Amino acid sequence: MSELPRVVILGGGFGGLYAAKALRRAPVRITMLDRRNYHLFQPLLYQVATAALNPSDIAYPIRSVVAHQKNTTVLLAEATAIDVQKKIVKLVDGEVAYDYLIVATGATHSYFNHPEWEPHAPGLKGVEDALEIRRRVLLAFEAAEREVDPDRQKAWLTFVIVGAGPTGAELAGALSEIARHTMIRDFRRIEPASARVIVIEGKERVLPTYSPDLSKKAEEQLRRLGVEVITNAIVTQIDDHDVFIGDKPIPTRTVLWAAGVQASPLARTLGVPLDRAGRVLVNDDLTLPGHPEVFVIGDLAAMRMPLPGVAQVAMQGGVHAARSIEGDLAGKPRQPFHYRDKGSLATIGRAAGVADLGRIHLSGFPAWFIWLTVHIFFLIGFRNRLLVFLQWAWAYVTYQRGARLITGDVEPVLRE
Amino acid sequence: MSELPRVVILGGGFGGLYAAKALRRAPVRITMLDRRNYHLFQPLLYQVATAALNPSDIAYPIRSVVAHQKNTTVLLAEATAIDVQKKIVKLVDGEVAYDYLIVATGATHSYFNHPEWEPHAPGLKGVEDALEIRRRVLLAFEAAEREVDPDRQKAWLTFVIVGAGPTGAELAGALSEIARHTMIRDFRRIEPASARVIVIEGKERVLPTYSPDLSKKAEEQLRRLGVEVITNAIVTQIDDHDVFIGDKPIPTRTVLWAAGVQASPLARTLGVPLDRAGRVLVNDDLTLPGHPEVFVIGDLAAMRMPLPGVAQVAMQGGVHAARSIEGDLAGKPRQPFHYRDKGSLATIGRAAGVADLGRIHLSGFPAWFIWLTVHIFFLIGFRNRLLVFLQWAWAYVTYQRGARLITGDVEPVLRE
Repeated sequence: MSELPRVVILGGGFGGLYAAKALRRAPVRITMLDRRNYHLFQPLLYQVATAALNPSDIAYPIRSVVAHQKNTTVLLAEATAIDVQKKIVKLVDGEVAYDYLIVATGATHSYFNHPEWEPHAPGLKGVEDALEIRRRVLLAFEAAEREVDPDRQKAWLTFVIVGAGPTGAELAGALSEIARHTMIRDFRRIEPASARVIVIEGKERVLPTYSPDLSKKAEEQLRRLGVEVITNAIVTQIDDHDVFIGDKPIPTRTVLWAAGVQASPLARTLGVPLDRAGRVLVNDDLTLPGHPEVFVIGDLAAMRMPLPGVAQVAMQGGVHAARSIEGDLAGKPRQPFHYRDKGSLATIGRAAGVADLGRIHLSGFPAWFIWLTVHIFFLIGFRNRLLVFLQWAWAYVTYQRGARLITGDVEPVLRE
Repeated sequence: MSELPRVVILGGGFGGLYAAKALRRAPVRITMLDRRNYHLFQPLLYQVATAALNPSDIAYPIRSVVAHQKNTTVLLAEATAIDVQKKIVKLVDGEVAYDYLIVATGATHSYFNHPEWEPHAPGLKGVEDALEIRRRVLLAFEAAEREVDPDRQKAWLTFVIVGAGPTGAELAGALSEIARHTMIRDFRRIEPASARVIVIEGKERVLPTYSPDLSKKAEEQLRRLGVEVITNAIVTQIDDHDVFIGDKPIPTRTVLWAAGVQASPLARTLGVPLDRAGRVLVNDDLTLPGHPEVFVIGDLAAMRMPLPGVAQVAMQGGVHAARSIEGDLAGKPRQPFHYRDKGSLATIGRAAGVADLGRIHLSGFPAWFIWLTVHIFFLIGFRNRLLVFLQWAWAYVTYQRGARLITGDVEPVLRE
């Protein structure tokens, strides 16, 4: 056993997990490192943020995923740096040596050189982010109900989402549904349906990575849900009372960040050229220039032909890295990575969404239905699939949301 | 409308909620105050702490419970004091006047004049407590897997529960099941089944409030589940490496507090005599001496004939307060509160538990099955009932636990 090459995988996201699973029969010793004990199904994270699902419905213990895979050890650990010369991953509390390394630590939010905006406009990457957004959204309605001053009340009932990509569109649609349906009967002093949901996009259309016809459909559906869509608009300032477009303020107490992402800081420790988003410029086979034993996959990798930051790219990249390692061990030559685009799906609200399936473009119910099916299919674990399906069915019928908990600190609002 | 008497209810627990519901047709204006936006089904909180259920499965928005009850307004607010002379409840940010007041703010942990133990031994009252306990328990196994020193590893795999009342027994049984079943296949370096689960009780038997025969049954079942039961043992010291019984240390990194409770501090602001646990000494009709318009119910009230701190007492107290107010408005005389004991149920693990149904005493599967049925019945909301039932069924078949997420800070362990 001690003769077998050591494969270290950094990150238990889609890329890392699919790499590990693809190597389950390979004659290697795999060590999987993540600072979380669970794999998170990020495409549904916005549903946790909008009180529709529980964190554990879309999270699964990494250990359990590979429990039957005897060649794999999972360790809760945080990598701080990578020494590609010594072939060592440095941890907060030690180091791990590798023969092959697969770096799949993904991306985090980018505030475009305005880190001071972060406390006012949380992004949506991890479970904690989602719960913080849920807390702020639900607290805003509670605060509005307690507020006597009409202007402050309006501000509490104004929700601004910066960025109209898939996440921004999903958040906007969900918030509008919460205000217009979920909350409708629950308050005595405010009219939740009077809440404004505003989504701000810097480019000229929503879902800019989609085709213009689907962007148009998406915007129509957003407006039909009561969302105010502002395009070609650059946010110049965010504080705890306003969002500024140019010098025009929008009074609001709840701003959500769905605009930029940047690669995980670990990339910087590789000592290789990065692109503007901090991603690693990799070879055609997803390896580090000069280091065929180091693979960089998913959101962390930048190929010559740019790829979207979606789960599919990470999954296929993970499998490619695994196959390349198996190929080496079998003395086969490396192959370049080819991404097979299986299409893009975005949901906007109940029975609303867009689907780009290559030649076929869908919107409305069919797109939404495909989105639903695909996402339940890709969820890990029968339990999660069943629970998510049931909660969606229940929510669809009742318009209610099952996770309307304000956890954490409520003081800031009570002291307002 | 403005002529109707104002009823203010403090606390959305079992007592407050049942009082509000019992007043739904009364000619009063009800204002319900809680610093949480949800009603928490505390009897199942230990299942959140042991990763079996999600917080939202056992929590329900207070607003939604009374959404159709037009005479009731719900406000997220924290009461800081009660002025029974001015008939005013003081809030963090204002005050609310009342004609009738129902105080149902419940109880919190008591560390027997050792507040310094709290950071080392979290108790189980709120959702945050449960998630903190879940975090520590799951982290302990992760830390053990990373630990090289055998003694430290043993300490990580030793779980001590202080107090063998219902909560202590439930936690002990669940932790033992996690170690012996749930985790069994997931680790490579440690043997989760070798974990020690120790429950320490100061009195001479477990479940001291139950009859001796049921205590005996409960202890047998705990031992069968692999739990070490220590009775007649007083904890003298708790730090972050040991629990001391007398001068004998038990090395452990995870201590859970299920021993003492004390009444919510709000009671002290009433300016009336309290008992040793800080509870209000109330009249036979649950009112404050000299203040027939102020009711104190649930864990906060101490009657001449002492009652257990269970949901049933709070529920019946809430209904009694409501009926008394309706009686006043109808010119009827006050009636004393009589508690109808419907029996006590405690679960210990899968197919294990005890039930005291008056003349009938049950243990094992029948007791556990009754416990299951009763708890699902009393859950609020069809969704919660269905989800809890399904997750229990799934857990019973697979021995898995669906909420194995470590959220929050993992650094302390990573830096160990």
